[in-house]
Amino acid sequence: MKNEELKIFAPATIANVSCGFDVLGLALDNVGDEMLIRKVAKKGVTITKIIGQDLPLETHNNVAGVAALALLAETESDFGFEIEIDKRIKPGSGIGSSAASSAGAVWAINKLLGNPFNSTDLVRFAMEGERLATGVAHADNVAPALFGGFTLVRSYNPLDIISINTPSKLYATVIHPQIEVKTSDAREILKTNIPLKDAIKQWGNVGGLISGLYTEDYELIGRSLEDYIIEPIRSILIPAFDPVKNKSLNAGALGCGISGSGPSIFALSKGKETALKVAEAMKSVYEKVGIEYDVHVSKVNKQGIKEL
Amino acid sequence: MKNEELKIFAPATIANVSCGFDVLGLALDNVGDEMLIRKVAKKGVTITKIIGQDLPLETHNNVAGVAALALLAETESDFGFEIEIDKRIKPGSGIGSSAASSAGAVWAINKLLGNPFNSTDLVRFAMEGERLATGVAHADNVAPALFGGFTLVRSYNPLDIISINTPSKLYATVIHPQIEVKTSDAREILKTNIPLKDAIKQWGNVGGLISGLYTEDYELIGRSLEDYIIEPIRSILIPAFDPVKNKSLNAGALGCGISGSGPSIFALSKGKETALKVAEAMKSVYEKVGIEYDVHVSKVNKQGIKEL
Repeated sequence: MKNEELKIFAPATIANVSCGFDVLGLALDNVGDEMLIRKVAKKGVTITKIIGQDLPLETHNNVAGVAALALLAETESDFGFEIEIDKRIKPGSGIGSSAASSAGAVWAINKLLGNPFNSTDLVRFAMEGERLATGVAHADNVAPALFGGFTLVRSYNPLDIISINTPSKLYATVIHPQIEVKTSDAREILKTNIPLKDAIKQWGNVGGLISGLYTEDYELIGRSLEDYIIEPIRSILIPAFDPVKNKSLNAGALGCGISGSGPSIFALSKGKETALKVAEAMKSVYEKVGIEYDVHVSKVNKQGIKEL
Repeated sequence: MKNEELKIFAPATIANVSCGFDVLGLALDNVGDEMLIRKVAKKGVTITKIIGQDLPLETHNNVAGVAALALLAETESDFGFEIEIDKRIKPGSGIGSSAASSAGAVWAINKLLGNPFNSTDLVRFAMEGERLATGVAHADNVAPALFGGFTLVRSYNPLDIISINTPSKLYATVIHPQIEVKTSDAREILKTNIPLKDAIKQWGNVGGLISGLYTEDYELIGRSLEDYIIEPIRSILIPAFDPVKNKSLNAGALGCGISGSGPSIFALSKGKETALKVAEAMKSVYEKVGIEYDVHVSKVNKQGIKEL
């Protein structure tokens, strides 16, 4: 068997990106899971090892396992796959931990099979991992993990994923306060109906953000990073959200908001120097109130999953 | 006095453009008002003549007059202006009749004054004409009339207008059934609150449309021209909306929807040939049910207002 084993990096991702609730996402460059996927004679999918986190090894209870099975259900392969995960993204941090493992598994298996599936198929399979993790098969983390850069989930039915131009100087700073916010809880507090006038502001900002990404207008990107719908509700679940946001903006961030359903807070900056200053500003808040945290500073990753 | 008189063309416009309610608009190329603006010794603004439509000549009751006064209120000019309007866009048609006259007046006066105001100022002044016409100072028609092409009103407060790339092969077909829908009535039937799940679809489509405009991906533009919020409600005010839309799409239109608050219906097509076929398809519906109509086929105008 040729190419019988692949070692890959599957990036962490920031979903929603302020104004783009459930549709926008972006990939990080130096934060992600490392995975080893091996073609084996035994049919089916086996999770052989998980390093770094206490997560289920049973295939049907593991997001990578479930995503891989969704792919294999559409093939007639005479062999199976073993998956080892070096789990470097903490589950529940809000930077696409389940999405990275799900996307990584299907990307690598597709490659080992000779790429029978297109990228939309891969999103569809990886979404099954998301369904297991959160109860909702969302695509706004798995799409940027697979494609890199900024992605837009224009539509779920039919699934329509658009890769958006990603300016080269765009850096993300992410701080993860060590508290748990379950995606399902973060969804439950949202309102079923929203004011039309707020929705109009939101889609004005989505339009502005997409335009700013194509024209590489960093100021416009910054002005568009406003969320009138979700952030006012969800931010109450995140300790010291307002001071972290205010200090980030004062330190030069273009914008700042909740990463996915939280509790991580992200900021985007033009250039690494500013992104590092923003990290110091964010840290200073949690140092002061005594909350444990992780901080990541990363270029926006244009490649997505890659072989190591 | 140099440059003491300007003759201009002020284009008709399509606001909303399906998914972009209150934020998106585009300008037409061969449909618009012609205006003559003259610098005169007598201070203030005088509407000297209106050809083609029965509209008020009193400055305070005329949209061009009100917009011009808003501009002059921020200058200390020692002279005034006379305005003649050859009103070629029917008021109440839904293709920015009031916006064209308002935008034309302020654009020409600014030019005759030596351009003291920037384009955002001009939008602001022209919005006063819209306030007179509809009760709401909206910008989604005056912005494309002034700038040309596709425009995005990202924000009203502060006013932030973004020019969006406009693909060269994009043509609009507009049919105006000869019935009146007042903008104020068309606003009143809208709901104050909307389902979050529909809003998400809508901003997914706004993102898709803006992306498609930049990448000149006509198929993506077409897929994004869906309105889940406004069209289902307002289309009941427009005779035979569904058959007009269906026939337009069958004739090859990328998408079809309500122009502004109606009653005009617009379609976008790739290329003039298809746009002409769409016009025939639209006409066939109103011929059959015996409704009078006007039809326009126009390239999307990238220039906005121009001197004649």
